[in-house]
Amino acid sequence: MSGSAERMQDTADAFVPGQRVHIEGHLDGPLAGLTFAAKDLFDVAGTVTGGGSPGWARGRAPAGCHAALVQRLLDAGATLVGKTITDEVSLGILGENAFFGTPRNSKAPDSVPGGSSSGSAAAVAAGLCDTALGTDTGGSMRVPASFCGLYGIRPTHGRLDLAGMVAQMPEADTAGWFARDAATFARVSEAIFAEPAPRELPKRLLVAVDALGFADPETAAALEPLVQRLEKLLGKREEVALAPQGLSAWARAMRTLQPWQAWLTFKDWVDREDPPFAFSVARYLVAGSQISPAEHQWAALMRQEARARVAHLLRPGTVLCMPTTPFPAIRKGLALSAQQDPRDRITCLTAQGGLTGVPQVSMPGAVVDGRPVGLSILGSRGGDMTLVALAAAFERST
Amino acid sequence: MSGSAERMQDTADAFVPGQRVHIEGHLDGPLAGLTFAAKDLFDVAGTVTGGGSPGWARGRAPAGCHAALVQRLLDAGATLVGKTITDEVSLGILGENAFFGTPRNSKAPDSVPGGSSSGSAAAVAAGLCDTALGTDTGGSMRVPASFCGLYGIRPTHGRLDLAGMVAQMPEADTAGWFARDAATFARVSEAIFAEPAPRELPKRLLVAVDALGFADPETAAALEPLVQRLEKLLGKREEVALAPQGLSAWARAMRTLQPWQAWLTFKDWVDREDPPFAFSVARYLVAGSQISPAEHQWAALMRQEARARVAHLLRPGTVLCMPTTPFPAIRKGLALSAQQDPRDRITCLTAQGGLTGVPQVSMPGAVVDGRPVGLSILGSRGGDMTLVALAAAFERST
Repeated sequence: MSGSAERMQDTADAFVPGQRVHIEGHLDGPLAGLTFAAKDLFDVAGTVTGGGSPGWARGRAPAGCHAALVQRLLDAGATLVGKTITDEVSLGILGENAFFGTPRNSKAPDSVPGGSSSGSAAAVAAGLCDTALGTDTGGSMRVPASFCGLYGIRPTHGRLDLAGMVAQMPEADTAGWFARDAATFARVSEAIFAEPAPRELPKRLLVAVDALGFADPETAAALEPLVQRLEKLLGKREEVALAPQGLSAWARAMRTLQPWQAWLTFKDWVDREDPPFAFSVARYLVAGSQISPAEHQWAALMRQEARARVAHLLRPGTVLCMPTTPFPAIRKGLALSAQQDPRDRITCLTAQGGLTGVPQVSMPGAVVDGRPVGLSILGSRGGDMTLVALAAAFERST
Repeated sequence: MSGSAERMQDTADAFVPGQRVHIEGHLDGPLAGLTFAAKDLFDVAGTVTGGGSPGWARGRAPAGCHAALVQRLLDAGATLVGKTITDEVSLGILGENAFFGTPRNSKAPDSVPGGSSSGSAAAVAAGLCDTALGTDTGGSMRVPASFCGLYGIRPTHGRLDLAGMVAQMPEADTAGWFARDAATFARVSEAIFAEPAPRELPKRLLVAVDALGFADPETAAALEPLVQRLEKLLGKREEVALAPQGLSAWARAMRTLQPWQAWLTFKDWVDREDPPFAFSVARYLVAGSQISPAEHQWAALMRQEARARVAHLLRPGTVLCMPTTPFPAIRKGLALSAQQDPRDRITCLTAQGGLTGVPQVSMPGAVVDGRPVGLSILGSRGGDMTLVALAAAFERST
């Protein structure tokens, strides 16, 4: 982050205003020379974790120690250069924050960056750092990766230590990272997972035809050449339905479980402090407070079905590909009523992550109307580095 | 508003921060020499009407002309000295504003000032001005009058010109004013209503025993000597039930009609801008959006019954008295869950105003645990000045 006026303005668009952070990484780690940023849900010792919400920061003491993943990156040699804007307490998929602003999507400046890891994606996309930590409960890594044209991972749920990260829904929360190129993405992933990328690629390529058909035709068409490149690496595709019960049924289950759990997570704070929120965020929490036990039970059963489905489809050695989002980034500043359909459609393609916990990597490479859109690869639980290795091979195959 | 540091700090507690307003009144009007403030829902030419909500002010142009009542007070000779903090877009009864702070209740410094005309009441109570304009839809004049120990009026609905005032629920919105003493209160009221105070007092005194019994015993006991003073002026009390259907049924009707209408009033703005609100305010609007037509219809019928009841009770020459609030001001900073019961109980004693539109004046004089609490007098539609005259006679009767 050097200091021309123009650069600083870009910086302010992705980083939390007024919060200067610079911590040098360990001198001779594997990530020496790389810079990173952390979504403002991760503790950085000596700074207040703001959570993208003025009410979250209010009266909060500076963190006493780094979040586990921040420490891991510093130990591996990466240098922390800032904390990034997030949707309010991670509740959002578009990346528009009423209090801190909308991080600029340098790949599509009139469009949202995607959220909730909006600032982390924007910072990496703009070249302000090499990688950045984000989180993903219902799509918060994958959507900004798709919208900003980045590599981004939602790791296997439960694999990484999330100590020092603001929780939303522990049964689905994950932490991930972005990179502009697959080599950096692999280098960071190897350091964080402490596991080398495997030499062997998966043997079986599934294509989720329900998800591909659910995307806009232009997006499906733009992704098709990428699927063909995967075929060249892995062999002929097999067409399957990811969600025989319906992507919309999976999405409905996630839209039940997530606000229910988010309300349980935040309700004591909300009750005590009556904090400010954008209307849409408060409405989401109110919706969570109103979900009936019967609705929740239906959603929990659907989650069981989703888990059974991906366990059946995604055995080790198998990878499934699908559009990360059904379209590229939508315009900034749409009315709430105009956002509803895009939000719901995005959830139809992201719900499987929170429901099943399998790892997913979004890869750039397709463009629709000048805006990037990502292709996702999903693998079996614990097979994160197989996806990372495939992403690297895929990039080299260009 | 002269300028010692201490005074400025008090001022900042009641007036909108950073907004300096000073407009001299007409030189020889009947209110010459008096100062007034206006709740930040009233337009003052050249300033942005903030509405107590950062999202309301955002992008809004300064008002082109004064609100009708601001102009009326200036024409009558009063000098405008500031705009006062209000609950967000008038939605609130306690006077705690998450964005602008809670105006200091100088009569009960650890307690809320009452809302939504919180800053206007606080400014008058602290002696920062002689009178102040507020609004009242569901209790926003009467509650702060009671909590801050002031004279305050909710005029007959529809009597005054509300041009240039932010609307919430046109079918129940009114504008009122506060004063510390009944003489100033009468002087301002005569100027605004353009009607002299009548010499003749009402002939019949009703006491709403359902409302008196609904108040805390300490509050009812503290108000009893005031009722006895009214008896000396008007003759022996007749005990009646204000709401035979139940004060709680009237309150439920108001808690249905008001959020329903508030949602209709604000929904286009909310949809377009997704503005920030305290959680409780957003929740109120969400509740309004969720009211069913059947619930609304029940509430509209109950409103008809309430109107019939007050038309029967409050013929010209009759005045009804009742506690303005069931208790004095509650502590500041309570958790939302701890506020729920007090909010609901307050509404049981304020609902008649919004439902029926009859005029109501709250008078100070009782104290419970060191905190003021008001006695209200209600009259027939259009009988505002009779209530004002009775308040003046009542004060002199001390």
